[in-house]
Amino acid sequence: MSENNSNLLSLIKARRSTRKFKQRPVEREKILQCIEAVRFAPSAEHSQPWRFLIVDDPAKKELLVKHAFSGVYSATRWAAKAPVLVVILAELDFLANRLGKQITGIHYYLIDIGIGGEHFVLQAQELGLGTCWIGWFSQKGVRKALDVPRKYKPTAILALGYPDVKKYQDKIRKEPAEMCWFNNFEK
Amino acid sequence: MSENNSNLLSLIKARRSTRKFKQRPVEREKILQCIEAVRFAPSAEHSQPWRFLIVDDPAKKELLVKHAFSGVYSATRWAAKAPVLVVILAELDFLANRLGKQITGIHYYLIDIGIGGEHFVLQAQELGLGTCWIGWFSQKGVRKALDVPRKYKPTAILALGYPDVKKYQDKIRKEPAEMCWFNNFEK
Repeated sequence: MSENNSNLLSLIKARRSTRKFKQRPVEREKILQCIEAVRFAPSAEHSQPWRFLIVDDPAKKELLVKHAFSGVYSATRWAAKAPVLVVILAELDFLANRLGKQITGIHYYLIDIGIGGEHFVLQAQELGLGTCWIGWFSQKGVRKALDVPRKYKPTAILALGYPDVKKYQDKIRKEPAEMCWFNNFEK
Repeated sequence: MSENNSNLLSLIKARRSTRKFKQRPVEREKILQCIEAVRFAPSAEHSQPWRFLIVDDPAKKELLVKHAFSGVYSATRWAAKAPVLVVILAELDFLANRLGKQITGIHYYLIDIGIGGEHFVLQAQELGLGTCWIGWFSQKGVRKALDVPRKYKPTAILALGYPDVKKYQDKIRKEPAEMCWFNNFEK
């Protein structure tokens, strides 16, 4: 299959981080299809650490925005206008994330959150929805606004909605030669 | 678009972690298309922390296997038979991963490695290739075998090749009700 007829690569290239949304609500059926895409993602020791609290109730969303995007985190205030905020939480298991982490020093659950969350993002893209990964928020604020049980760790938020963007700015991306080598770092 | 005609969801559901491969070599052109899929992935502050050392030279691969999958890590020895081992490294930037991490405690680069790496995995799947994410390896061993420059941190490995699997075992996955809620954790 050449690059030109890859469905996936077209989808991936069309995806852009979206920070401006139409006020049109997002159908829950579509959100649940994104969740379905997450379910089939791989994870360390099949731990499936991802949990999703989907906030589409305006009052609840306002509360979340107030507590999560204040003070040092107010740069993320733009997300208040997203019709949906998807809070991604992690539930840490013992094998991969307590014992394994002790040995290798790597928080595997974060890699898994990236994998699972990106399945959500790509599925949203296919359904005509825009997303933006958000890491810059108050975890304490999220806990407070949403009564998050202790066992879940707020790890990321996705802004979600129908994009209201005429043209995305071009983005400079690393060339393959800057990020990829065969067998040796030296060329 | 209903679930039944989602190209992406079919691709995602067809992907399974592959631990048995044909000895058929993997075309570098296909590997480079996977890299192209990574290039368009989102990352914290557009930091693009992912780097890929693709090991498809048999002697180099043997050296890598010897050092990376020994002792406590020997459970990962099966990967020796993958025709390609893709070492994913991270180059940490200042803004997202030094300053940001100080404030939120989250290693954003690991989420980004998950996102970028999964673009690779899904693109490989579309090209008929199988992959398996590997977190269980000696970072020190990888450094030694491949002369990894200090600025790159070995973070994950992907086994890559044409699958030699007749039937994958069914896998139990969390139901949506176990991992997803709207607005409140209580139903």
